[in-house]
Amino acid sequence: MAGLYLSFLFQLFFCLLLLLHPSTGNALVESLQSCPATNPSMLNVHLVPHTHDDVGWLKTVDQYYYGDRNNIQHAGVQYILDSVIDQLQKDPARRFIYVETAFFYRWWKQQNQSTQRIVTQLVNEGRLEFINGGWCMSDEATTHYSAVIDQMTLGLRFLNDTFGECGRPRVAWHIDPFGHAREHASIFAQMGYDGFFFGRLDYQDKARRMKTKEMEMLWRASESLTPPLADLFTGVLPNGYNPPEGFCWDQSCDDAPIRDDPDLEDYNVDEIVQKFLNAGFYKANHIIMTMGSDFQYENANLWYKNMDKLIKYVNALQAKGSKVNVLYSTPSCYLQELNLANLTWPLKTDDFFPYADDAHDFWTGYFTSRPALKLYERLSNSRLQTCNQLEVLGGPKSKSGPFGEGDSDTMSKAMGVAQHHDAVSGTEKQHVAYDYARRLATGWAHCEVLVRNSLAILSGSEAPRVFCENLNISVCPLTESSHKFSMNVYNPLGRTVSWPVRLPVNGSVYSVTDANGRAVDSQVGNVFISLKCTCYIYDMKSSCLLPLLSVRWFHCLSPHRNINNKSVLLYVFKFLKVTFDETTGLLSSLTNLETNQTIQLTQNFYWYNASAGNNKESPQTSGAYIFRPNSSDPFVINKTAETQIVTVSSTVQEVTQWFSPWVSQVVRLYEGHRELELEWTVGPVPVADGLGKEVITRLDTDIKSSDYFYTDSNGREVLERRKDYRPTWELKQTEPVAGNYYPINSRAYIKDDKHQLTVVTDRSQGASSLYNGSLEIMLHRRLLYDDYRGVGEPLSEPGDFSDGLVARGRLLLTFTPPDTAADVHRPLAQGMVLQPLLSFQDDSYYELEHQYQAKESKTHSQPVTVNLQKLFSTLDVLGASEMSLGANQWKEDMDRLQWNAGNNYPSPWEVTLNPMEIRTFLLRVRQL
Amino acid sequence: MAGLYLSFLFQLFFCLLLLLHPSTGNALVESLQSCPATNPSMLNVHLVPHTHDDVGWLKTVDQYYYGDRNNIQHAGVQYILDSVIDQLQKDPARRFIYVETAFFYRWWKQQNQSTQRIVTQLVNEGRLEFINGGWCMSDEATTHYSAVIDQMTLGLRFLNDTFGECGRPRVAWHIDPFGHAREHASIFAQMGYDGFFFGRLDYQDKARRMKTKEMEMLWRASESLTPPLADLFTGVLPNGYNPPEGFCWDQSCDDAPIRDDPDLEDYNVDEIVQKFLNAGFYKANHIIMTMGSDFQYENANLWYKNMDKLIKYVNALQAKGSKVNVLYSTPSCYLQELNLANLTWPLKTDDFFPYADDAHDFWTGYFTSRPALKLYERLSNSRLQTCNQLEVLGGPKSKSGPFGEGDSDTMSKAMGVAQHHDAVSGTEKQHVAYDYARRLATGWAHCEVLVRNSLAILSGSEAPRVFCENLNISVCPLTESSHKFSMNVYNPLGRTVSWPVRLPVNGSVYSVTDANGRAVDSQVGNVFISLKCTCYIYDMKSSCLLPLLSVRWFHCLSPHRNINNKSVLLYVFKFLKVTFDETTGLLSSLTNLETNQTIQLTQNFYWYNASAGNNKESPQTSGAYIFRPNSSDPFVINKTAETQIVTVSSTVQEVTQWFSPWVSQVVRLYEGHRELELEWTVGPVPVADGLGKEVITRLDTDIKSSDYFYTDSNGREVLERRKDYRPTWELKQTEPVAGNYYPINSRAYIKDDKHQLTVVTDRSQGASSLYNGSLEIMLHRRLLYDDYRGVGEPLSEPGDFSDGLVARGRLLLTFTPPDTAADVHRPLAQGMVLQPLLSFQDDSYYELEHQYQAKESKTHSQPVTVNLQKLFSTLDVLGASEMSLGANQWKEDMDRLQWNAGNNYPSPWEVTLNPMEIRTFLLRVRQL
Repeated sequence: MAGLYLSFLFQLFFCLLLLLHPSTGNALVESLQSCPATNPSMLNVHLVPHTHDDVGWLKTVDQYYYGDRNNIQHAGVQYILDSVIDQLQKDPARRFIYVETAFFYRWWKQQNQSTQRIVTQLVNEGRLEFINGGWCMSDEATTHYSAVIDQMTLGLRFLNDTFGECGRPRVAWHIDPFGHAREHASIFAQMGYDGFFFGRLDYQDKARRMKTKEMEMLWRASESLTPPLADLFTGVLPNGYNPPEGFCWDQSCDDAPIRDDPDLEDYNVDEIVQKFLNAGFYKANHIIMTMGSDFQYENANLWYKNMDKLIKYVNALQAKGSKVNVLYSTPSCYLQELNLANLTWPLKTDDFFPYADDAHDFWTGYFTSRPALKLYERLSNSRLQTCNQLEVLGGPKSKSGPFGEGDSDTMSKAMGVAQHHDAVSGTEKQHVAYDYARRLATGWAHCEVLVRNSLAILSGSEAPRVFCENLNISVCPLTESSHKFSMNVYNPLGRTVSWPVRLPVNGSVYSVTDANGRAVDSQVGNVFISLKCTCYIYDMKSSCLLPLLSVRWFHCLSPHRNINNKSVLLYVFKFLKVTFDETTGLLSSLTNLETNQTIQLTQNFYWYNASAGNNKESPQTSGAYIFRPNSSDPFVINKTAETQIVTVSSTVQEVTQWFSPWVSQVVRLYEGHRELELEWTVGPVPVADGLGKEVITRLDTDIKSSDYFYTDSNGREVLERRKDYRPTWELKQTEPVAGNYYPINSRAYIKDDKHQLTVVTDRSQGASSLYNGSLEIMLHRRLLYDDYRGVGEPLSEPGDFSDGLVARGRLLLTFTPPDTAADVHRPLAQGMVLQPLLSFQDDSYYELEHQYQAKESKTHSQPVTVNLQKLFSTLDVLGASEMSLGANQWKEDMDRLQWNAGNNYPSPWEVTLNPMEIRTFLLRVRQL
Repeated sequence: MAGLYLSFLFQLFFCLLLLLHPSTGNALVESLQSCPATNPSMLNVHLVPHTHDDVGWLKTVDQYYYGDRNNIQHAGVQYILDSVIDQLQKDPARRFIYVETAFFYRWWKQQNQSTQRIVTQLVNEGRLEFINGGWCMSDEATTHYSAVIDQMTLGLRFLNDTFGECGRPRVAWHIDPFGHAREHASIFAQMGYDGFFFGRLDYQDKARRMKTKEMEMLWRASESLTPPLADLFTGVLPNGYNPPEGFCWDQSCDDAPIRDDPDLEDYNVDEIVQKFLNAGFYKANHIIMTMGSDFQYENANLWYKNMDKLIKYVNALQAKGSKVNVLYSTPSCYLQELNLANLTWPLKTDDFFPYADDAHDFWTGYFTSRPALKLYERLSNSRLQTCNQLEVLGGPKSKSGPFGEGDSDTMSKAMGVAQHHDAVSGTEKQHVAYDYARRLATGWAHCEVLVRNSLAILSGSEAPRVFCENLNISVCPLTESSHKFSMNVYNPLGRTVSWPVRLPVNGSVYSVTDANGRAVDSQVGNVFISLKCTCYIYDMKSSCLLPLLSVRWFHCLSPHRNINNKSVLLYVFKFLKVTFDETTGLLSSLTNLETNQTIQLTQNFYWYNASAGNNKESPQTSGAYIFRPNSSDPFVINKTAETQIVTVSSTVQEVTQWFSPWVSQVVRLYEGHRELELEWTVGPVPVADGLGKEVITRLDTDIKSSDYFYTDSNGREVLERRKDYRPTWELKQTEPVAGNYYPINSRAYIKDDKHQLTVVTDRSQGASSLYNGSLEIMLHRRLLYDDYRGVGEPLSEPGDFSDGLVARGRLLLTFTPPDTAADVHRPLAQGMVLQPLLSFQDDSYYELEHQYQAKESKTHSQPVTVNLQKLFSTLDVLGASEMSLGANQWKEDMDRLQWNAGNNYPSPWEVTLNPMEIRTFLLRVRQL
């Protein structure tokens, strides 16, 4: 069972779903039957009216919803939905798709019953179709799969609860994200989507696919899952997500409207029709045309009025022999036609990273942009899981208890928008980044009340509780002022973890005991020059999965100060030995004491000089999206580090390295741990020299990795990368650094036959391996120019003191033979995602997930079987039904379009999880 | 009868009116009864949702209608009407007013029956109300009253025919024109409007009126008509025509929407409501708030959604003691409330020219801007009258006859839009000015066919006819190539005129005879250096008014060339003697030989240096709107003129004066005429020296005019002007030249006890008298800077050769005692407006008009009585009913709001016309 972990998706609405929406297969059939008629002997042009509504970018999500701050960008989603619903009613042929449930949900709440009835009717008739349907259109490079599933589920469940089966999106639609992760495709497939469309892919890849007619393909999105479980029909849209040139009729466009008054001097019908017919279609029998773009359809009449005319006048030519048939359609109707065509599609097995839209325009900067926001989002994910768990464990009183009214919804929604491709990606304007952070903070404030209530219920004590938000910078007023205090550690993981806790305290002597009064092995040490003490506390081990979540009590008393010196250059505990170079102060080697293997390891910090654009090759600058160093050779921050041993104790050893006033690092080794922790601090990045800086840390080893390295996809499966190479086409490499960067969400590694060095990260970052044995990770960026992708600001986060943001983070290094590496890095990475909260667990339904990839671990890459009734010992499980991954559909009802391959779903009761499989069940429970 | 002239308004629809729209007084009552309830104990804030839709300005009228060229300006009227109609249906409380019938007419035609029914219902219920209702919102400074009445009638009749009484606008609405003419107010009063609202008046006047609460008044708009015939309630809108600051919710605005989701961080209802309550209202019980602006309501939902909320939340405060009541309203509902208040209003008897919006920002440049367009518009007016007359005279075959399909509608509509306050005003972009000219040309092309057909019917000859469009520059291929040709002169005036005709011919010997073969007194002379001959032909006098329109045949043969010399410096014919100064070549005196009176008269040409703005006083430049010379002293073009006698004959004497390569003049005196003609040619105005130039001609005399001078209002009544003075407030003069300019549409004069020098013009121009005995008229302008009023271009017309436009025109000078001056200048000015067409008349209904102002002529300023049955000898007049001036209402049904004065309408059968009266009758006729 050691390879099986459980994560939780909390859903309030599961009963409603059962009560209100029994399987309505007929409505679905009706919906698809309502697809417009096509003409098999003609070229059918599917016009897909759509709007792309970022849940934050240049404006905050609220500003976008209400149409506030239109001086920044004209965009008001409330009006878009008002207008589209009006216009759809004018003609049953008209169709519209809507994507972002965060906006639709809010709009729906504000409508009266009459409008809601009309909208429901439009949905039932397939005239308004939800596409994608998550809370947002998530970023694919910088999101963690758990948060992606959460946000998709949040949106899909709302649609399901509101519209039943007819509201279920059948097509995934990521028209804007800047590169596409295989794990996203895998998730979509498991959520029951029949197909996936996107807009952006590498320009070389696109050119090739246009030529070879491989714009549409079957994406086999997992190496682990049995096909077709993770197979997803995938189409690249011909024109990004925009209309063809000259046919943009939104209020935001300047294209000529169709002027069909024959009395008019400016009559232009013939000219427009001819231009349309000359638009150069694919040679297929069907083509999809995206008629819309960012925040379009605020005044939908403009679009529909002109499209009505276009359809009328183009189809009128059929009487004169034209073979073009234009129709209003939707991606699912288009997809259905492709499916009926029964063709064989090319297979895709890797992913679509990195994305470049020109030779020097690699969108690999955003993998790292806004590192503090990226961390905060990840931390919030952990907190939300905790909050959800405590909401269930504490029961109804957790939401309204001794500490007031609390909820997890606010946090769910804040996390929902934070997954957006201009949110955690770091590509939004500064004021919007602040807004996302504020939302997460507000979400946590609501959760805090809930957590306080729940802990009061669970502990039986209503004593006030404090959460220390600033422990990462060693600030906690309570622990610093109190001579005696107790602490709860709530562990949201479904298993025991050993987790270091550092508390700032003012006294020098503490005794630390657990809830039973037993002494806890702890250490009080110096924290930087503030002379604050740090109390290291380890969570107690619990021997099994049940009870899943445990509350531990610690009493910190009587610390003693440790005198530092600066001579020890060797670390050693049970599992690892670490050496430092005496001359440079840098790491010099790593030894795995279990396997008795050693590598040379040098680690240092460098910065690439961000390009300001040049006349010779390209004006492209480095910016929030784009990474473009103006040289492939980074500057070293310092060849040597000033090194200081902070702590040497029986539980932890730490060394601080100073590289410059704005770059430092603490190297930590914990007793009983297999990883080496590198806590880096970078910033404020100085730019007074006029040079934008992109700061990396590089690990140089004697591992014979050649050009290969490995990066995870959304924190799940790992993909092999190869320098200056793409698996599916012959790459002409034009950016030797930026063109080799890939996103990492949880880990990266290099390996050879004997050794594997894995780095587990605390947030999403960009990473690469440019030299044999080398692995580099970008940590922070501060730039001076906008990169011309719309954000209109240089990425230069001001930080608290307007002199530049300080970022701090952790890299966990594991060094093992390749065949046992996953046994270490999988739990390590998961522990990074779901962190203990210094304060408690149960749930409605679980995602049972297999966390190991096929073949990566001899021990754990094996199917695991779980008994659902035994799993929840504190709840009376009345029944269990497996659902699609997005929990908006019964698994047995999943009736995805078939793409010429047999189907093979296992029957769900005793549940077997294959490697990398996630399965979702709806449990009907009664609290015991 | 000599003082009575008839002009014609042709209306196709008069029968329809009778058949379809019997007087529907009940619907009107219903419409006014449908005004929203107000609260007498509160301040009632009337929100008036409106859009201001220029029929051409930065874009052409077609581009505005369809929303084309949105890169220039975002504006699409078709969508505005679509959207407003949709939104009005959502809530019966919502209201909207629509103004420009040119746009509404076109939109209406494109709607299906269902939409037409809905709109009719909205109109009947007073939810959609037509305001003003002319084809356009005419300019007031540069339009001729006849064209204004035509364009108003065109719009009003459409509304009447379409919606009956409920479609009749009760309020005139000139929110944008740049100054307001008394004649316009008089016309509106006579058309039955109950009130008039406008937005722009002199900033000093406005400040004073705000202080003294005289923003609303009774305008007595005629010195001649018996009150209250030309009395008009007039209100100045508090905020131009814009919404109060912070309350603009159009898609084109950036004001914050009302964010009333209480879960939202950005909730702003309280703040907005408070801001609204603090907006500083008038102290009256009712206030009007214009909620809209240029081309707004393209997406009406934005406006209504937020206004709905504003009304809801502001009125909700009444429960807490607030005394503010907000409601959707219309100008007529607001007006009704003011009328019910039964207050006494200040009286206004002068006009609102010139308009200044700041100390150095006098909108007096547009009086002259685009002189060629202004002439072409005036000429087109004459042609349209001719076309209308021949359409009736020729009967149905005139529209479909031997020369094809012709119509007058195209020209009517082209003239309708040409009256717009950014059309004939000259304040549109260059490409739009070209479009207006193109429309007039197209209009005339349609008329030409009609005229050819009609003349063929009337003459019995289907021989092809040619119209020579370029006679003003002496080009006519037919007359230049043919040795024998005949010519028709069609005289659209209701009386005999003597009119010189100049034809370019190639031969040197012509004999000219009339239709009866009698020799015509003619003269063949040299035309410039081209050696072309000119054939002067005079229309034959006819002795009475009937038949109204006469066709004359002339045969030009055998001209002889006249040898020029350069010595004669004295002109004399029967009525006038003109002398030139031998040294300077300039005019030196004028003698009226009938009255034996003489004045010294010097005339020369000057240019003001257009201001480029300065840092000291104001950055204001001279531009299309604004006249701002950078010095009060103009530069003289030349102190002396090179003079050449062109012709001395028994019918005409002419002298050409050359002032510079770009300024010349022909001075002409015709036998039998009382006026001296000055044909000026100005251009291309050189600007290579970097100086914008505003060219004037100035007449300096020894008339003791002191500071007084006189200018006409829209070609009708004349107003006294006084330098540096305004009749209604103490002027602080800040622009000694521009602040003394006034528009003239037909004439200006100076006078003392004995002498009056009157100048009759061929188009609208700006004029002033800055010195005792002096009168100046601005002829042409070429500028280098935009003047920051939106047009975004400097006024620098390129002309045919891109080196600057050449303008040519005529000033007719009459010199008489003051008490007989009108006897000369009235017919002279009318002849200038309705010019004979070299080619052919009947009608449906007439405007009987008295053309003399009260007391200005002893002979003619007397009531005149006409017998309508005798007037139309060629038609069988079955009945006659008097109508309002806009011909959209029976005169007896006119039930205008009363403003505390008795009413006194004479009974209409034997019709008596008092000075300056225009009366409109609908005649039912049968062709004899």
